[in-house]
Amino acid sequence: MGKKRAICILSGGMDSTLCSYIAKNDGYDIIPLHFSYGQKTQKRELQAFRDICSKLKIENKYEINIPFFKDIGASALTDNSIDVPINGIKKGVPVTYVPFRNGIFLSIATAIAEKENAKSIYIGVIQEDSSGYPDCTNKFINHMKQSINEGTKKNTNLDILTPLVNLSKEDIVKKSILLNVPLELTWSCYKKQKKACGLCDSCRLRLKGFKKASIKDKIEYKGIK
Amino acid sequence: MGKKRAICILSGGMDSTLCSYIAKNDGYDIIPLHFSYGQKTQKRELQAFRDICSKLKIENKYEINIPFFKDIGASALTDNSIDVPINGIKKGVPVTYVPFRNGIFLSIATAIAEKENAKSIYIGVIQEDSSGYPDCTNKFINHMKQSINEGTKKNTNLDILTPLVNLSKEDIVKKSILLNVPLELTWSCYKKQKKACGLCDSCRLRLKGFKKASIKDKIEYKGIK
Repeated sequence: MGKKRAICILSGGMDSTLCSYIAKNDGYDIIPLHFSYGQKTQKRELQAFRDICSKLKIENKYEINIPFFKDIGASALTDNSIDVPINGIKKGVPVTYVPFRNGIFLSIATAIAEKENAKSIYIGVIQEDSSGYPDCTNKFINHMKQSINEGTKKNTNLDILTPLVNLSKEDIVKKSILLNVPLELTWSCYKKQKKACGLCDSCRLRLKGFKKASIKDKIEYKGIK
Repeated sequence: MGKKRAICILSGGMDSTLCSYIAKNDGYDIIPLHFSYGQKTQKRELQAFRDICSKLKIENKYEINIPFFKDIGASALTDNSIDVPINGIKKGVPVTYVPFRNGIFLSIATAIAEKENAKSIYIGVIQEDSSGYPDCTNKFINHMKQSINEGTKKNTNLDILTPLVNLSKEDIVKKSILLNVPLELTWSCYKKQKKACGLCDSCRLRLKGFKKASIKDKIEYKGIK
């Protein structure tokens, strides 16, 4: 009998990469799942996903293309008429919120989990030290877990695991170092694909994590040496 | 101020078409939403969707393409290596079950509802007189409603309406006649796209409904006059 399987939602950012390493460390045979959803940095994120999968010597992985998010728009990540903010993190739900993104990601992950006979889905949501997205909370994930187990076959009993949900960005950097996560292969910037901008919310949260952990981020930033 | 809006998931079958007519009858400005998910009859279903939208003089509608279901496979509706059964309805979850399809459809409908400031999502699931899909029950829909309202913006308060959930196929035919639903434009067959096969579960349920309602189905069936 093979190892138990887990679907790992892996954007290629720091959080989801650590999350996948934790799943592997938990003893799972991991099946990484990436979404290209028309986000402005989708090429770079896909590259990060593939680099990380290569590093992990993954054979079975899913690259799912759901361009309809671009048609829906209404988010600075997918809508060319809305700029990615670079003036610092504000309170409330930011314009980078993509409507019900994690609901859609978890639903698709569920379909793949049923096909692959996986036992768990790992998702690297962070509740505390995050951008204020409503689809990143413990409460939301628990509701989704119930919906998923109600709406699938009787013998499908999926666990949704969120090992990062209560971590700070500092914790994430430190834990990544402990687990030998190749943070230099990950990509967080919402805005740029060559050198990270250093100014969008995602770059700010990442840089804050490295700074607090007193570790140097090896990726290149525009204008930061 | 305009009318309140509802997203109506509309496959182009009998149930979803009646459901959209009910939403209109309930006073909503309806926004029909169709999915092409790699199902074997997707061209014919899309045509039915468009015919019904034309009949309803709809301007704002969504046709969403999610071909990844074909890559996932594991269902007779999307996987060419699994035949659509034609030997009668069996107990339990049939091979035409598409993993967590309604979970995915409702999640995407939610994203569109947030963008469109819709108040409700209508979905034509049937619990009793149906094919035994786990994602068609009242309990599942109620869980999804909670998940959706937990995982979206605070001012997004979506209702998920299932006016058909306790109806029989006979009720559906009768109610359709009452509301002038153009049943002749709808398509139910899982297998064929020119003349309906009359033998798959979906054709059998449809034909049973018409027979019990003592009404003639105007669409053409292969080998049935």
